[in-house]
Amino acid sequence: MTTVTLGIDVGGTNTKIGFVDRHGRCLASTHIPTGADKPFDNFLKDVFSTVEELKKEAGEIEMVAVGIGAPNANYYTGKIEKAVNLKGWGEEVAIADLMQEHFKVPVAITNDANAAALGEMKFGVAQGMKNFLVVTLGTGLGSGIIVNGDLLYGHDGFAGELGHINVVEDGRICGCGRRGCLETYVSATGIKRTMFELLADNNGSSLLSNKTFEDLEAKDIFDAAEQGDELAKEAFAVTGEILGKALADTIAIFSPEAIVLFGGLASAGDYITSPTREAMEANCLSIFKGKTRLVVSNLEGDNTAILGSSALAWQEYEKQQA
Amino acid sequence: MTTVTLGIDVGGTNTKIGFVDRHGRCLASTHIPTGADKPFDNFLKDVFSTVEELKKEAGEIEMVAVGIGAPNANYYTGKIEKAVNLKGWGEEVAIADLMQEHFKVPVAITNDANAAALGEMKFGVAQGMKNFLVVTLGTGLGSGIIVNGDLLYGHDGFAGELGHINVVEDGRICGCGRRGCLETYVSATGIKRTMFELLADNNGSSLLSNKTFEDLEAKDIFDAAEQGDELAKEAFAVTGEILGKALADTIAIFSPEAIVLFGGLASAGDYITSPTREAMEANCLSIFKGKTRLVVSNLEGDNTAILGSSALAWQEYEKQQA
Repeated sequence: MTTVTLGIDVGGTNTKIGFVDRHGRCLASTHIPTGADKPFDNFLKDVFSTVEELKKEAGEIEMVAVGIGAPNANYYTGKIEKAVNLKGWGEEVAIADLMQEHFKVPVAITNDANAAALGEMKFGVAQGMKNFLVVTLGTGLGSGIIVNGDLLYGHDGFAGELGHINVVEDGRICGCGRRGCLETYVSATGIKRTMFELLADNNGSSLLSNKTFEDLEAKDIFDAAEQGDELAKEAFAVTGEILGKALADTIAIFSPEAIVLFGGLASAGDYITSPTREAMEANCLSIFKGKTRLVVSNLEGDNTAILGSSALAWQEYEKQQA
Repeated sequence: MTTVTLGIDVGGTNTKIGFVDRHGRCLASTHIPTGADKPFDNFLKDVFSTVEELKKEAGEIEMVAVGIGAPNANYYTGKIEKAVNLKGWGEEVAIADLMQEHFKVPVAITNDANAAALGEMKFGVAQGMKNFLVVTLGTGLGSGIIVNGDLLYGHDGFAGELGHINVVEDGRICGCGRRGCLETYVSATGIKRTMFELLADNNGSSLLSNKTFEDLEAKDIFDAAEQGDELAKEAFAVTGEILGKALADTIAIFSPEAIVLFGGLASAGDYITSPTREAMEANCLSIFKGKTRLVVSNLEGDNTAILGSSALAWQEYEKQQA
C-alpha cells in the first residue's frame, strides 16, 4: 500500500490529474478537458470518474490528501474566485469543499505559480530551501514566494503578483488595465511584443519578418536565435535585462537563497538566463551581490503541474500529522 | 514582581535603554552616548552599569529577555556587521552573545526598522495583524515586513531593503552607489532634495529660498507648508506620489493588511499621507484596490525605539515558552 496524494492542475483548456507518492513519483496520471464554458458540476463529475479510473491504474494506494492548482484559487477560502478563463463556472466555486465532501480527505487549493513553488521545494531544485522565489514565465508572469518555509499568501490569499509590478513608467498596455507591468515585457507574450518592436525599429532584417503578430510564438524566437538571428537574440537580451533588474529589487526585499525560473520561456536556457543573471547582479545592492542563485526548474515535463499541486497536498497532510 | 524585557536601541549617536512590561509600559528608561568611535568594550560596560541604575528605578522586576535594535544587526548571527555609523567597533561585534553572557537571559538583535515592525505588532496600530509592512521614514527609508506573523529576514537576515528598490531609471545618486533608489526620493533627505529641485525649477519663490542645502531639514519644509508655501506643499505631493506608486507594487507582492508609516516624515500627517494614499490606490492592481490600509504609527514618542526592541525580546521569550 503506497501513500499518495492527488494532484489536480486546472487550466483554461485542460485539467491534469495524477497520484504522486512522497518521493515525487507520479504513479498514474491523465488529463481531461476542463470544459470551462459548461457548468462546474460537469467538471466535478468528470474529475470524480477520472480519479476512479486512475485508481485502477495506480495499484495499491492510500490517498491522504488532495491539492489543486487553479487560476485565482484562494488558499484561505478554498474557492476559485473570478477566474477570467473559467467563465462558465460563474463568479466563484467552492471547489475545495466540494472535493472534500466527495473524497473525505483534506483538500487545499492555490494558484499555479504557488503550486510550482511548493513543487520545487518538495521535489525540485529548491529542496531544503526556506526562502526563495519561483517566477513562472508563461503567457503571463506569475510568482510563488516562499518565506520561512511557507508560501506568502498575504492578507487575502492573493499575494505574489510580481507580474504586475511597474517596471516602465507609462510603458506597455497590460491586460490588467494599467501600463508598464513586468509581464508585458517578461513572458511569452512580452518577448513577442519586444520582437515586434525590434522588427519595427530595424525595418525587418530578421528571419521572423514573415510572421504575423497572431502567429508568432516565443518558441519561434528561440528557433530563430538558434539559427543565428541577431534580432531574435536581442529580444532575449532585452527581456533578460528587464527581468534581471526587477529581480534585483526583489532580492533587496526578500534576500532569497535562490530565484527559480519556470515555464516555457525559461527553457530557452542561456538566451534568457545569461542576460537576466548579468542585469540582476549589476543592479543588486552590494550586500546582496553574489548571494542569490538564479536557477532553472528541473521539474519540466508532462507531470510538473501535477507535482506542484500534489506538493500542496503533501504540505497540508504533513501539517495535520505534526 | 513585574515580568519585563530590556529594550536597547543603538543609534549612531545615542543608545536608548529601558524596561518594558507585557503591555508596553516603559517602567524605566534612559539614554547614553553610543561612543561609536571608541572600542566596543566601553559601550558594553556603559550599558551594564546603566542597566544596574535602571533596575533601582524600575521597582520589583524580573527581566526575562533582551532585545536590541541596531544598524546592520543580523538576527541570525547575533552580530552587528559592517555598520557604517559604528566604525569604531570594527568589522563586526557579537553583541548578542556578549550581552547574553552578562545578563544570562535570551538576547536577540535586529535592525531598527524590523524592531519597529515588531513594536507595532505587539503594542501599536498593527496589533492582531499577521501580514503588514512598516516603512520608516528617517534620514533614509527602512522597512520591516511581517509575513504570517513573523519578520521577513530572508536567507541571510538582511531582507527588507525597500529603500533600495529602483523607482527612477538613472535617477538620483544614492549612498549605496547606485541611482534611483526609493530612499533618494522618499525620506527626510529625499524630500529635501526634491525641495531643492523645485526651488531650482521655480527660480526660488518659496519661504525656503533663504536656506542652504546643509541647513534645510524636513521639519522646515513642513513648517513652510503650514504657512501656505506652495513649493513646500508640492515637495510633499511629489514625495507622496513616488512613495504611493512604490507601495502599490509592494501590495501586489505582499497583499498586506496595512502599511504603517513611521518616523519623522510620517508625522507630517496629511501632507504626506494624502498624496501617498492617492497614488497607492490609483496604481494598485484592481484586485487589491481598497484592501490595504495606510496608517501612521501611534507609537511616536521618546520610548518608541525601546518599545520596538523590547517587542523583539518579548517575541523571543514567548517562542521559548511555547
